[in-house]
Amino acid sequence: MNKIRIGIVGYGNLGKSVELGIRQNEDMELVGIFTRRNPSTIETVTRAVAVYTMDEAKKMTEQIDVMVLCGGSMSDLPFQGPEFASLFNTVDGYDNHAQIPDYFSAMNENALEAQKICIIAGGWDPGMFSINRLYAEAILPEGNTYTFWGKGVSQGHSDAIRRIKGVMKGKQYTIPIENAIEAVRRGDRPELSTREKHHRVCFVVAEEGTDKEQIEHEIKTMPNYFADYDTEIHFITEEELEKNHPGLPHGGLIIRHGRTGLHEEHNHVIEYQLALDSNPDFTANVLVAFARAAHRLNQEGVAGAKTVVDIAPAYLSSKSAEELRKSII
Amino acid sequence: MNKIRIGIVGYGNLGKSVELGIRQNEDMELVGIFTRRNPSTIETVTRAVAVYTMDEAKKMTEQIDVMVLCGGSMSDLPFQGPEFASLFNTVDGYDNHAQIPDYFSAMNENALEAQKICIIAGGWDPGMFSINRLYAEAILPEGNTYTFWGKGVSQGHSDAIRRIKGVMKGKQYTIPIENAIEAVRRGDRPELSTREKHHRVCFVVAEEGTDKEQIEHEIKTMPNYFADYDTEIHFITEEELEKNHPGLPHGGLIIRHGRTGLHEEHNHVIEYQLALDSNPDFTANVLVAFARAAHRLNQEGVAGAKTVVDIAPAYLSSKSAEELRKSII
Ligand SMILES: NC(=O)c1ccc[n+]([C@@H]2O[C@H](COP(=O)([O-])OP(=O)(O)OC[C@H]3O[C@@H](n4cnc5c(N)ncnc54)[C@H](OP(=O)(O)O)[C@@H]3O)[C@@H](O)[C@H]2O)c1
Ligand SMILES: NC(=O)c1ccc[n+]([C@@H]2O[C@H](COP(=O)([O-])OP(=O)(O)OC[C@H]3O[C@@H](n4cnc5c(N)ncnc54)[C@H](OP(=O)(O)O)[C@@H]3O)[C@@H](O)[C@H]2O)c1
Repeated sequence: MNKIRIGIVGYGNLGKSVELGIRQNEDMELVGIFTRRNPSTIETVTRAVAVYTMDEAKKMTEQIDVMVLCGGSMSDLPFQGPEFASLFNTVDGYDNHAQIPDYFSAMNENALEAQKICIIAGGWDPGMFSINRLYAEAILPEGNTYTFWGKGVSQGHSDAIRRIKGVMKGKQYTIPIENAIEAVRRGDRPELSTREKHHRVCFVVAEEGTDKEQIEHEIKTMPNYFADYDTEIHFITEEELEKNHPGLPHGGLIIRHGRTGLHEEHNHVIEYQLALDSNPDFTANVLVAFARAAHRLNQEGVAGAKTVVDIAPAYLSSKSAEELRKSII
Repeated sequence: MNKIRIGIVGYGNLGKSVELGIRQNEDMELVGIFTRRNPSTIETVTRAVAVYTMDEAKKMTEQIDVMVLCGGSMSDLPFQGPEFASLFNTVDGYDNHAQIPDYFSAMNENALEAQKICIIAGGWDPGMFSINRLYAEAILPEGNTYTFWGKGVSQGHSDAIRRIKGVMKGKQYTIPIENAIEAVRRGDRPELSTREKHHRVCFVVAEEGTDKEQIEHEIKTMPNYFADYDTEIHFITEEELEKNHPGLPHGGLIIRHGRTGLHEEHNHVIEYQLALDSNPDFTANVLVAFARAAHRLNQEGVAGAKTVVDIAPAYLSSKSAEELRKSII
C-alpha cells in the first residue's frame, strides 16, 4: 500500500504535534516541514525530517498528498490557507469562529479551481465539538446545547496576562462551574451568564519589587478577557510555575438536554467530554485523521472546501468498510 | 418546501416513539403505519394517523420517501428489511451486532437493484456509540476503547426473568461499575472481566406462595444472562414495580483513553455519555434524523446499504450548510 504523504506548513506547537501524531498512523509518512523561517535554524522534534522554505512547496505538488496547515488562525491562515488550497489538499484547525464563513469561501474558490479538497476548522473546538453539537441537535430537536471549556490553559488569556507591566510569566486556567453543569444535566435549561459558566484562575510570576495589588487589579478589570468573570490570582515563583504548571492541558464538555414523549415527559442528556494533557497533540491528531479523509475523498474526485461535518466518519478510519462493520458497528 | 414523507413499519415500542419523534421535525410528515396485525385493532398514540396492512405498502412507493423499519431485530428485520429495501429508502436500528455483515449484504443487494438507500444499524448501540467508537479510535490510534451500558433496563434480561416459573413480573437494570470507569479514565488500561464491568439488579414480583429462594437461585445461575455477573435481587409488590420502575430508561458511556507525545507522556480521555429516560424514544429520534439523511442522499443519487458511519453528519441536520457554518461550527 502506498502511504499517504503528508506535509506540515508552519512549525509551532501544532506543527510539532502533527510531526509526532503522524508516527501513530502506519498508513502515513511525513515528507517535510515548511516554514517562513530559515530552515537551518529549525530543530525538529524527531530529528530525521526535512525542513523546507515555504517557497519550495510549490515545486513539490507531486510529492505530497495532503498539507496540514499549522499556522496561526489570526494572521497566518487567512493568507496561507487560500495559497495552499490552490496547490494541495489541505486540512487546518482554523478557529476564528466568526470568520469561518469568509475563510470557507476563500478556500472553496481556490480549491475548486485546483480540484483539491480543503477540510477547514478541524481540531476540537471547532472540530469534534462542532460535530457533537450537530449530532446532538439533530437527534434531540427539542432541547438546548451548552458548551463548557476546561479545565485547561487558555493561550490567549495567558498571553494577555504576560503583556501586563511587571509580569514575567503567567498561565491562565479556564474552569467550568460545576453547579452550572449540574443544572444543565438536570434539565433546568438555565440561562447562564458568562460569569455563571466559567471562572478563571491565574498563576503569575511577578518581577521583583512590582506592586502585586496593581497587577491583580489590572488582570481582574481587563475588558473581554477577565472583567466578566470571577478571577482568582496566585503569585508564585518561576520554579513553582515550571514544576506545577507545565504543558498545555485543555478539554471541555458539550451537553445537550432534550425532551421527548407525548407530553415531553422524557428527559435525555447527551454529553461529549474531552480531558487532554496536550491541546496541540490532540488537535494535531484530529487533523491527521481528517488528512486521511481528505486524501481518500480527493481520490474519489471530491473537491472544494469542506468542514468536519461534511465528512462521513468512515473516511477518518484506517480500517476498511468491511472491518468497520465487523468490529466497530 | 416539500416535507419528507415517512412511513413506519411495525408498531411496537420503537414504532410508537417514531410516531412521536417525527412531530419534533418540521420538515417531516408521517404518512402511515404498516403492521402485520389487523389495522382496525391498532390504537395509535397521536390518533390522527392512518394504519395499513403490510401488503398495502407496495402500492404506496410514490407516497413515501423513507420507511423507518421498527420490527424486532431477531425475527422481523432479517426478512422485512430486504423486502422493503427493494421498494423504499429505509432506516433501521438492527442491533444483532454479530449478524450485521450478513444483514448489510442482503440489504445492499436489494437496495442497489432498486436504486434506494438503506441506512442500517442506527439507534444508540449500534448507532451513536458506533460513530463515537470510530471517531475516538481514529483520533487516538494508540489507546483503548471501553463501552459501558446503563444504568438502564435490559429488555432481554427482563424477559429472561419473566420466563422463570413463579415470576409474575420483573425488570432488570444493567449498572456499570464505577471503579472500572475510574480505572479507564485514569489510563490504567485495565483488562476487565464481564463481572468487573457491570452488575445486574433485578426487581421481581413473585406469584403468591412460590419459593423465592428457588427463583433467586435460578436467576443467579442462568447462563449467559446472569451467571457471569454479580446479581442483586429484590422481591417487590406489583404496585411497587409500577410506581418505582416505569418506562424503559437506558444509557451508557464510551470511553477511549489514548496517549500521545514523543514518549507517549500525554494522556487523553474522550467520553461520550447518554442518559435516556426512554430507550425507544431516543432510538427513534436517531432513526428519524438518519431518515432525513437517507432522503437527501437518495435525491443526490446515492443507493445501496450504508451504516451510520458512512453518512456525513451534516445530512442529519435540518439546517443548510451555510447555517451550519455560521451557527454550529
Ligand atoms: N480547532 C482547535 O481546536 C484548535 C486547537 C488548538 C489550536 N488551534 C489553532 O492552531 C493554530 C496554531 O497553534 P500553535 O499553538 O501551533 O501556534 P504557534 O505555536 O504560535 O505557531 C503558529 C506559527 O508561528 C510560527 N512560529 C512558531 N514558533 C515560532 C518561533 N519560535 N519563532 C518564530 N515563529 C514561530 C510558525 O510558523 P513558521 O514555521 O512559518 O515560522 C507557526 O506556524 C492556532 O492559531 C489555533 O488557531 C485550533
Ligand atoms: N440500535 C439501538 O440502539 C436499538 C435500541 C433499541 C431498540 N433497538 C431495536 O429495535 C427493535 C424494536 O424494538 P421494540 O422495543 O419496538 O420491539 P417490540 O415492541 O417488541 O416491537 C417489535 C414488533 O413486534 C410487533 N408488536 C409490537 N407490539 C405488539 C403487540 N402488542 N402484539 C403483537 N405484536 C406486537 C410489531 O410488529 P407489527 O406491528 O407488525 O405487529 C413490532 O414491529 C428491537 O428488536 C431492537 O433490535 C435498537
